[in-house]
Amino acid sequence: MTDRIRDYFKALPHEEPTLVIDLDVVRQNYLGFARALPDSRIFYAVKANPAPEILSLLASLGSCFDTASLQEIRMAQAAGASAERISFGNTIKRESDIARAYQLGVRLFAFDSDAELEKLARQAPGAKVFCRILCDGEGAEWPLSRKFGCEPRMAERLMLRAAELGLDPYGVSFHVGSQQANTMAWDAALATVGQIFRRLERLGVNLRMVNLGGGFPTRYTRDVPNAERYGFAIRDALSRHFGNRLPETIIEPGRGMVGNAGMIRSEILLISRKSDAETQRWIYLDIGKFGGLAETMDEAIRYPIETPCDGAETEGAILAGPTCDSADVLYEKRPYALPVSLEIGDLLLIGATGAYTSTYSSVAFNGFQPLRTVCI
Amino acid sequence: MTDRIRDYFKALPHEEPTLVIDLDVVRQNYLGFARALPDSRIFYAVKANPAPEILSLLASLGSCFDTASLQEIRMAQAAGASAERISFGNTIKRESDIARAYQLGVRLFAFDSDAELEKLARQAPGAKVFCRILCDGEGAEWPLSRKFGCEPRMAERLMLRAAELGLDPYGVSFHVGSQQANTMAWDAALATVGQIFRRLERLGVNLRMVNLGGGFPTRYTRDVPNAERYGFAIRDALSRHFGNRLPETIIEPGRGMVGNAGMIRSEILLISRKSDAETQRWIYLDIGKFGGLAETMDEAIRYPIETPCDGAETEGAILAGPTCDSADVLYEKRPYALPVSLEIGDLLLIGATGAYTSTYSSVAFNGFQPLRTVCI
Repeated sequence: MTDRIRDYFKALPHEEPTLVIDLDVVRQNYLGFARALPDSRIFYAVKANPAPEILSLLASLGSCFDTASLQEIRMAQAAGASAERISFGNTIKRESDIARAYQLGVRLFAFDSDAELEKLARQAPGAKVFCRILCDGEGAEWPLSRKFGCEPRMAERLMLRAAELGLDPYGVSFHVGSQQANTMAWDAALATVGQIFRRLERLGVNLRMVNLGGGFPTRYTRDVPNAERYGFAIRDALSRHFGNRLPETIIEPGRGMVGNAGMIRSEILLISRKSDAETQRWIYLDIGKFGGLAETMDEAIRYPIETPCDGAETEGAILAGPTCDSADVLYEKRPYALPVSLEIGDLLLIGATGAYTSTYSSVAFNGFQPLRTVCI
Repeated sequence: MTDRIRDYFKALPHEEPTLVIDLDVVRQNYLGFARALPDSRIFYAVKANPAPEILSLLASLGSCFDTASLQEIRMAQAAGASAERISFGNTIKRESDIARAYQLGVRLFAFDSDAELEKLARQAPGAKVFCRILCDGEGAEWPLSRKFGCEPRMAERLMLRAAELGLDPYGVSFHVGSQQANTMAWDAALATVGQIFRRLERLGVNLRMVNLGGGFPTRYTRDVPNAERYGFAIRDALSRHFGNRLPETIIEPGRGMVGNAGMIRSEILLISRKSDAETQRWIYLDIGKFGGLAETMDEAIRYPIETPCDGAETEGAILAGPTCDSADVLYEKRPYALPVSLEIGDLLLIGATGAYTSTYSSVAFNGFQPLRTVCI
């Protein structure tokens, strides 16, 4: 699927770790989501990878954009998205940023608290608002916390209040947790959302939209269900909980849109052992936790790695990054099986690195430049 | 101590989180280390904060520089440090970077493995090299791992080999762990280093230098011993393990040099609760884990925080950053006691943020700009 990336790298000498994105894969992913959930609007989660080429491609395909900040709104607009295709999806916004987003034409906003609703009422009168509810994220590989969302009963009160404040009480959102491998994860949340819809209807507020969030996985070292299977499970759950009165729906894929579209090439800087008696190899790369692979935190995400010696005998190695920071170790609790014959200077391809890499990269920790991105 | 920073902030409206460094404090810290360890050369760990104003000040005071990359070497030279005042202290170096550092005049290099020694022999003939040994880091607040260093017996073999390869077997380094609150932490390591010196002497190799590393703490919310007490404990340990044949020594303070010289001003973007029944406050700031406060990882570093309502009744709050990332929570396991009367828009001063903040900042996660630094 990413042979174009392999060919691109082959033609170039290695100077620094570089992320290459295959735009054809992004296109396929977009079309896959569109086929799997034909009645849902797709809001690409810009934070996953805001490369201008990705945003432009998705804008041309008709995608909408889920943005986390005023800067991301501007990026989406620069890529050709009109304001009605942009959601300001962060529940934590500077009030002046809400005002500026509204001036730019954005009319769709997330919130999960009284105070945020009051900011929206002041700065975005009449805008469509959706309330994020808490969701337990069971089955997800990237940690969820209680940071976003409120309890469903509070969401109901907030939606009533939204109407009173002159906002448009548009819908409810939730997030099942990133890299969610269980296609059934949406079902329990949709049951709750269905109840919220019905209770509010009885109180005279008609919600119209369910934001199904992201969580769609990318394939790392284990197989994951494809978009079609997620689409089937979600449509099934929607029918179960909404009957024939289906709401509008939104999905916000980020990782699922770009994760498998990227590969990072990295050079082995050092292979060593800690004592003459030990056989445990340490392999040090020119990229680590602070250069873009932050999602290896607690060894949460395990990237597939291709080496020039694939097929040869392997042995577990501890993989670490190049910085003078002892926390900059990628895989140690579960060493990574890599060919015994690897040598310093060998180039590795770290796969499925299209999402949550370039933007997590530190500004210049240890003087190392941030991860460079090339789109092909 | 940082009234100058408070005054600086008072005069300016808040637009984005900003780190302000008081250079007077950096100067005091440098002079404190120089007084505490008058016979040690001070190599400032550039990675802690590479702001050009800090590097220039330290260069003018006579400091040397511990660098982690070619870029940091160039920064130190741009600040006025001559090559003989620069140590290339990363044990993981690209071979071509060693060659470039050597061309720039650097003659002092760290290593901890055969392969790195071979690179140094090829690219930096005759250079002074020091071998880093493993050290358990007990008592340190920032996690140490086995990433750097080798077992002492292997270090001995490597130093013999360094001599054979035409390098100058100069000394041994270790690191007792960052934010090391125990002044005795150096003692056990120095006992080991003393043995290495004596065993190698019998084999005809005379080491001359002990690199005592960093680990000197800064004051966060708990008191820490001052430089004088570290100096006393270290000099005492040196006498105990080297008698009257004291080696040259190097220290590499980073956090201890700039940590307490910096304050970040941050705005409260949102205060909320997760349900109408809950009393637990969530306070969301305009800076978080990805904007420079990465050392709150696992709630390791607990920064002191000043608020406009200090003195009023307090209550524990969960503190979180502004990004759409559920991992971007600063303090949750141990909520932070903050005034009950705090409001959205209030400005907080996050103290002791001079080290390991601006460089840990992500490039543009969620579209947020990296942490800005101002030196006064």
